Amino acid sequence: MAQDIMLYWGSGSPPCWKVMIALEEKQLQGYKHKLLSFDKKEHKGEEVPTLKHGDIVVNESFAACLYLENTFKSQGTRLIPDDPAEQALVYQRMFETENLQKKMYEVAFYEHYIPKEERLESALKRNKENLIAELKLWEGYLEKTGKGSFLAGKNFSMADVVAFPIVAYFPRFHCPKERCPRLMEYYEMLKDRPSIKASWPPHWLEKPEGQDTLKNL
Amino acid sequence: MAQDIMLYWGSGSPPCWKVMIALEEKQLQGYKHKLLSFDKKEHKGEEVPTLKHGDIVVNESFAACLYLENTFKSQGTRLIPDDPAEQALVYQRMFETENLQKKMYEVAFYEHYIPKEERLESALKRNKENLIAELKLWEGYLEKTGKGSFLAGKNFSMADVVAFPIVAYFPRFHCPKERCPRLMEYYEMLKDRPSIKASWPPHWLEKPEGQDTLKNL
Repeated sequence: MAQDIMLYWGSGSPPCWKVMIALEEKQLQGYKHKLLSFDKKEHKGEEVPTLKHGDIVVNESFAACLYLENTFKSQGTRLIPDDPAEQALVYQRMFETENLQKKMYEVAFYEHYIPKEERLESALKRNKENLIAELKLWEGYLEKTGKGSFLAGKNFSMADVVAFPIVAYFPRFHCPKERCPRLMEYYEMLKDRPSIKASWPPHWLEKPEGQDTLKNL
Repeated sequence: MAQDIMLYWGSGSPPCWKVMIALEEKQLQGYKHKLLSFDKKEHKGEEVPTLKHGDIVVNESFAACLYLENTFKSQGTRLIPDDPAEQALVYQRMFETENLQKKMYEVAFYEHYIPKEERLESALKRNKENLIAELKLWEGYLEKTGKGSFLAGKNFSMADVVAFPIVAYFPRFHCPKERCPRLMEYYEMLKDRPSIKASWPPHWLEKPEGQDTLKNL
């Protein structure tokens, strides 16, 4: 079935990486793919990051992840549990990652998104405070689930699929460990998981040190 | 079962309204609820907008909507179809509404979110251009599905549940009709649907005219 799947992706993009982890977890290795160059702005052209499965085309990463889980439910890792309480927590954490991603981007990529003449110390300071407050929430979640647990409990789930590519930016962009010690333990626990290792961004392998825009958080 | 459900909500908040439409569509009328006052900042206190079902607590609106659909699958309107192609399109449009909401907020609530001393004509202008481009995408989607269709085809779906509360801001905030004529037809088609009418924001009923921050789009 993997031969019917085609992925257009960008290296290091959290939405793309999520889908790649889901593909690995669902045992869909061998899917066709094409790496788009963000530097050449290929992702803004005809071919945007997209999952195709036969004639089905999806380019929202949450949509792609849910579609893969539903379509290949009994194959590979079960990413959304049936138990209502467990399922609710997986969904809750899964969509909360949007807040973490947004607040991380607003600090880490501030200069990328805001034109030079519009940048303001006060805005960046507020963005940093928002990110610090968000990180405290996640530290609390991990404290509650306990050391060695995944985001939504004892099993790896879709919450981890979508969270890891965001969490991985914190060490790469030099976030001080003391800002999110539990999240960094979680990162260490997951970084060598086969699905994550197999989908690790190639340009991160080539150049393991990222920019340092989270250094002064 | 509706008696086991408790909703803390804010009037006119798209995330809350989505969940209320889903509750209506799933025939869960009679659920308990408490209206939080955004003016009094009650939504920032102990009680945030939240869905509780017995001991299960969810406060991300997508999580609440998916949880309700899965838990009450055979009750009321089927909001996520089984057919893979239909399902993929429902998911795709559903999560794309996040882009529409974000870009609408960045224009309609610019002054609400950006402190006075940080407001810039150039930033608001860019936000408007982004919103206009986003609206063109949605006009194209509705053109493709055809007049009288829902967002993801011939059936009402979760895509409509989550889109309508965002779409409703355009007429309320005086967006020129010519910016999104098809979206406005879609609004007219849906605004009297029972689930939507029953959950219409009470302060919109009291005061049908909203601010005019989308007037010069």
